[in-house]
Amino acid sequence: MSAEFPRGDARLARVRVVLSHTTHPGNIGAAARALKAMGLARLALVNPRHFPDPQAEAMAVGADDVLAAAGVCASLDEALAGATLAIALTARRRDLSPLALDVRDAARLAVEEAASGGEVAYVFGTEMSGLSNDEVIRCQRVAHIATNPDFSSLNLAAAVQIVAYETRVALLGGVAPDPGRTPPATHEELEGLFAHLETSMVRSGFLDPHNPRRLLERLRRLLGRARPESQEVNILRGMLTAWDEGPRGPRRE
Amino acid sequence: MSAEFPRGDARLARVRVVLSHTTHPGNIGAAARALKAMGLARLALVNPRHFPDPQAEAMAVGADDVLAAAGVCASLDEALAGATLAIALTARRRDLSPLALDVRDAARLAVEEAASGGEVAYVFGTEMSGLSNDEVIRCQRVAHIATNPDFSSLNLAAAVQIVAYETRVALLGGVAPDPGRTPPATHEELEGLFAHLETSMVRSGFLDPHNPRRLLERLRRLLGRARPESQEVNILRGMLTAWDEGPRGPRRE
Repeated sequence: MSAEFPRGDARLARVRVVLSHTTHPGNIGAAARALKAMGLARLALVNPRHFPDPQAEAMAVGADDVLAAAGVCASLDEALAGATLAIALTARRRDLSPLALDVRDAARLAVEEAASGGEVAYVFGTEMSGLSNDEVIRCQRVAHIATNPDFSSLNLAAAVQIVAYETRVALLGGVAPDPGRTPPATHEELEGLFAHLETSMVRSGFLDPHNPRRLLERLRRLLGRARPESQEVNILRGMLTAWDEGPRGPRRE
Repeated sequence: MSAEFPRGDARLARVRVVLSHTTHPGNIGAAARALKAMGLARLALVNPRHFPDPQAEAMAVGADDVLAAAGVCASLDEALAGATLAIALTARRRDLSPLALDVRDAARLAVEEAASGGEVAYVFGTEMSGLSNDEVIRCQRVAHIATNPDFSSLNLAAAVQIVAYETRVALLGGVAPDPGRTPPATHEELEGLFAHLETSMVRSGFLDPHNPRRLLERLRRLLGRARPESQEVNILRGMLTAWDEGPRGPRRE
């Protein structure tokens, strides 16, 4: 994906993730890895219960640099210093909450904000109870991750992973083409293949020209979905030629 | 979100996640939780190193039902039994891989397939080395999760979380099924076709078993893109049988 946007994208450098009052240090390490895998690097920790901690380092795997650079703050206000857009991740809707978005729209908004020079913060609460109302009202938006109504228990690092992923996808702005393909077959190549298929099927006795059963139309439909490459048409025609010659070795009568 | 679609959505019931040769049981438990949080419930484990395991149960939290129902399989073929669309999650592009999609488009395709009555499998490899080529070519699509080119190390359960999340979002987005299709071929039907193709190509002399030139991989890739229907597999096997018997009528010498 490296061709799709520059390393150390300036927009991602203006996005921070704030974890408030995290209980399990393993989640802080897993969150650091989740951020780094998506090209984010800025982590702020508001009163973590245990930090630094060996469990955090164990879960960070190659993201120890993100962990080492994480700022520990005494309050959410300190963690939000300089932020122009703070987005609170909450599992449930609340009265009087800021404007609510789904996380995809929130990520698009975050990338727009960063692209226009703003400073974005995603804010996550504790594993057990999420963000307090006092924390939520310090943000300009709340974002919800769609979950199973019967089981909305998302691990903290998993929620961070989804938000970081959506931010990266919003940044890439869409879909990677498949570079693995070689040139597609031309119309002439395809028609040559279908003509060869017909003669081979007739020659083998599989296709009765007096009762074709729409076999060629079915094969056109199948291969049309595949959009064959030139190389693939050549392979198929080579197979047909080999079959036209008939089986080698002992012949059944 | 419960208003947005019924609990126990029938489409999600036709989506399974396959974890092949997972090393760390904690990742199996975290994957079960990730699935359940997105409304998915079907987990198949191909030769897990440790399962069942207390670490898996610890990480599953409230998803012990998904863990308890997980099937342990001796091979990927067993885990893919009945699947009509298998999507391999891979970190890197490979030659001759099936058609590659980003995970968002793969999730849309998966929901469309399930909505039209198909059976979908997402296939994940080991923590260290991912899927083998032999596993990848048994799938009809590969999907990539966009990651940081400098640090693409995504935790296995985090990757499962992203795929499950995209599947849920695709579901909520409501994808219209393709009306024109008849039932897709199952994994067993496709493997039967590939086995027949190989014997027919060898018999005709087109495929030299001592120098296969990756011909079968190329045909798997072509037909994987086409996603054959059961009827189409039957037609192709009928053609192969006719060719196996050799041409009728005057024979060239």
